[in-house]
Amino acid sequence: MSIKEGQLVYLYGGERASYLILYYPGKRFSTHLGEVILPSDVSFGDSLTTNTGRKFYLLRPTTSDLAMKVRRTTTIIYPKDAGYMLLEAGIGSGSRVLEVGSGSGALTIILAMAVGEDGKVYSFERRKEFMENAMENVKRAGLEERVEFFNMDPASEGFPVENLDAAFVDVPEPWTLARPVHEALMGGGRWISLSPTIEQVQMTFDALEEGFVRLKCVEILEREILVRRGKTRPRERMVSHTGYVVTASKVNAK
Amino acid sequence: MSIKEGQLVYLYGGERASYLILYYPGKRFSTHLGEVILPSDVSFGDSLTTNTGRKFYLLRPTTSDLAMKVRRTTTIIYPKDAGYMLLEAGIGSGSRVLEVGSGSGALTIILAMAVGEDGKVYSFERRKEFMENAMENVKRAGLEERVEFFNMDPASEGFPVENLDAAFVDVPEPWTLARPVHEALMGGGRWISLSPTIEQVQMTFDALEEGFVRLKCVEILEREILVRRGKTRPRERMVSHTGYVVTASKVNAK
Amino acid sequence: MSIKEGQLVYLYGGERASYLILYYPGKRFSTHLGEVILPSDVSFGDSLTTNTGRKFYLLRPTTSDLAMKVRRTTTIIYPKDAGYMLLEAGIGSGSRVLEVGSGSGALTIILAMAVGEDGKVYSFERRKEFMENAMENVKRAGLEERVEFFNMDPASEGFPVENLDAAFVDVPEPWTLARPVHEALMGGGRWISLSPTIEQVQMTFDALEEGFVRLKCVEILEREILVRRGKTRPRERMVSHTGYVVTASKVNAK
Amino acid sequence: MSIKEGQLVYLYGGERASYLILYYPGKRFSTHLGEVILPSDVSFGDSLTTNTGRKFYLLRPTTSDLAMKVRRTTTIIYPKDAGYMLLEAGIGSGSRVLEVGSGSGALTIILAMAVGEDGKVYSFERRKEFMENAMENVKRAGLEERVEFFNMDPASEGFPVENLDAAFVDVPEPWTLARPVHEALMGGGRWISLSPTIEQVQMTFDALEEGFVRLKCVEILEREILVRRGKTRPRERMVSHTGYVVTASKVNAK
Repeated sequence: MSIKEGQLVYLYGGERASYLILYYPGKRFSTHLGEVILPSDVSFGDSLTTNTGRKFYLLRPTTSDLAMKVRRTTTIIYPKDAGYMLLEAGIGSGSRVLEVGSGSGALTIILAMAVGEDGKVYSFERRKEFMENAMENVKRAGLEERVEFFNMDPASEGFPVENLDAAFVDVPEPWTLARPVHEALMGGGRWISLSPTIEQVQMTFDALEEGFVRLKCVEILEREILVRRGKTRPRERMVSHTGYVVTASKVNAK
Repeated sequence: MSIKEGQLVYLYGGERASYLILYYPGKRFSTHLGEVILPSDVSFGDSLTTNTGRKFYLLRPTTSDLAMKVRRTTTIIYPKDAGYMLLEAGIGSGSRVLEVGSGSGALTIILAMAVGEDGKVYSFERRKEFMENAMENVKRAGLEERVEFFNMDPASEGFPVENLDAAFVDVPEPWTLARPVHEALMGGGRWISLSPTIEQVQMTFDALEEGFVRLKCVEILEREILVRRGKTRPRERMVSHTGYVVTASKVNAK
Repeated sequence: MSIKEGQLVYLYGGERASYLILYYPGKRFSTHLGEVILPSDVSFGDSLTTNTGRKFYLLRPTTSDLAMKVRRTTTIIYPKDAGYMLLEAGIGSGSRVLEVGSGSGALTIILAMAVGEDGKVYSFERRKEFMENAMENVKRAGLEERVEFFNMDPASEGFPVENLDAAFVDVPEPWTLARPVHEALMGGGRWISLSPTIEQVQMTFDALEEGFVRLKCVEILEREILVRRGKTRPRERMVSHTGYVVTASKVNAK
Repeated sequence: MSIKEGQLVYLYGGERASYLILYYPGKRFSTHLGEVILPSDVSFGDSLTTNTGRKFYLLRPTTSDLAMKVRRTTTIIYPKDAGYMLLEAGIGSGSRVLEVGSGSGALTIILAMAVGEDGKVYSFERRKEFMENAMENVKRAGLEERVEFFNMDPASEGFPVENLDAAFVDVPEPWTLARPVHEALMGGGRWISLSPTIEQVQMTFDALEEGFVRLKCVEILEREILVRRGKTRPRERMVSHTGYVVTASKVNAK
């Protein structure tokens, strides 16, 4: 199956030489391992050779790749966290979900993949330049039909959408959104927030005590194992903290 | 939005009193906190009171709930692992994926949620009674249209499907499937396996060296934080090992 | 080298059948794997057979064994934490250290091992029955000459000792001891406390801001690897939290 | 208590500005935060000010400081591992222990602190330049009386000492030492080795199956918590692997 013009390709030349690029036949691409020219009529799984003789593969990007390779204006969410959050939200194709703030659009892309063509992501970001970068990243991933962006601050203004399946909250003061999110969710809808500090978690728990049940906080750790014949061991350094995930379910007023 | 007859409900009465049940008006359900009778015309987010005065909520099941509450004939996959695996597979609505072995159907349900109505999960299980239990669990989750089960051993017979986006392998000898999975995947398609022991990982790496690139092994750890006013701390015991996740991308023969 | 009468022996019949006992020739000891009679003239490293044919070894107790096998009236400190704490205290043979609360005496024993015959542990416990149990445990380990117990509350009364090398604090409100410990330590002396909750740590940090520098908080995790031919993997469950260790150095008033 | 000439001092000007130095009155010491001149008649816990107005404290070095601040010719052992190893060895003041390889002397220093003036560390290193550096580091810590160094390879030659309490093995092929260490230990004596790869652990377990019981493998993880008002969280990166600790007890031939 040939790669189409404008399609995203994960150009893989090893762990430290991998790039998410848009495919156009004849396009030149320079890496520290040499230059490649993208040929016409290639398929995913094919390989290329740089002018210096190094091999690169044309791979299909994973969802993690799409998220991790966005142009960043903020810290981004890690797949280890996003994967857990997705399953805790109970969303799938056709779901309608809220995202507050868009950040660099990494989670927006993951959510857009999850809700499919029939679903919708409503993504709110109060800093205009961040929103524009996120839109650009979502568009590059070819997912712009599934996302509606809002440049506003829902903590004060509330959300112009309702009856949503889940809300993903990644802002410095998630507790300010407990009321507006409660109004925007359908009964039983899920709150999913991510915060780096324990004090943010404590204040979020306090705010969710009214209108939500099933509050839970976890952290997810990812540890790589280097598997090499006779020399297998965990990698020596790792990301030891990104954030705490808080989940809860909306309940209806008595 | 009223809950419909036959719909799955997460009946939540606290962390140690939660049940995944099928909703039928008038149905009686007994718990160690008393008995409830499911009323007609209720919505997600509503609450009930048991005959002993305890409160239960009718919540929307998360994907994790669907997976963790299957009837088990085998050890099941944990959401912490499944979420990471999903994002590493790069699948979404419309994807066609392979699963070898079905086990209890926990991952089957997660995959069926991810591929949506337009996608398909081809799930292989050689032990017939396990397959039948998995089918039952998938059906209960209302996802049977999205899954095709096969009671066969693809290590010897190969797969009767091809051009797939990703393969999820959870069998004791994943390395025996490297060849047949390579044939079943499209170029650039993803291998995702989960194995409890380091020796299984080593043999899988060996087998994937031909025909696959971008091999990686990680383990995912989930740690719960108990957030209580003035007494916040990590839970004192945790599941410290489920399995190692191995991922790779299929490349085409030169 | 023969084991002497009254000496502690670690009777080892496997991971789930091990006992810390006092050696007396002719003594009978019953286990779920049968009964042994301790012979005369045996050495460490020798083996015995129970009346049901199971083998037990007479091993030398480790410091961890001495601590973990005390009679418990409280939760006890784990070797993973105690080992780190010892090295952070900078103590050795001849050191004079403070311990507040004695608890079950597990840490008292570890400290007594570390300071040797020329050192001294001053151990404070306000609950008399706990102190008496701790004394009993220390005596059983043969270390009573190295420890002086005090049944008092130093938070209100202060310490009757001074110029100490380090203070080990394991009480619910460590911050109440910042002043009295500062007075009891020599210049540059070390504060080492252990607390289960993050709020305790925060209040301790606040209290140590005056009179101490080099404040640090860590948690230590121990994960067992089950090494078995062809089936090597981490143990499936672990203790995921005991406490946070806080360390600091006393500085002199300007 | 005045600091004596030639005594080790931990000069502390913050987490990124701390130095282990030998005290001599009038000595100048330059840091990236300015220069200090060590005054006469100062005590531990006193402070100094650099020529640029920054404050430094004269602290008593912890055992961890002595180990971590050695001049390194090799990777060194971390206190998190060494603390656990010490307690598993059951050694204290007066113990006689074996160390194979000396490395940079970091563990040698920790062991010398533990065995006190009445104990002895026999430290073996086959690379002469490493041994000489380790000797230099031990001497600087003032512990040279407690350590005897040997420039030889005990895997082939055996050990010229016997009846030891414990052996600490940190070499690439620990399994080659199982026999010689067995001969050098007293009955019930402890084997403690540290290895970075899982294959080393597997081969060590195989070798210890004869002559040792109570085999155990653990890894120790240290995670720092940054405690700051309103912004408490784990540090974002950590050392995720140093090595696996293997412990065992020598048993006598039947």
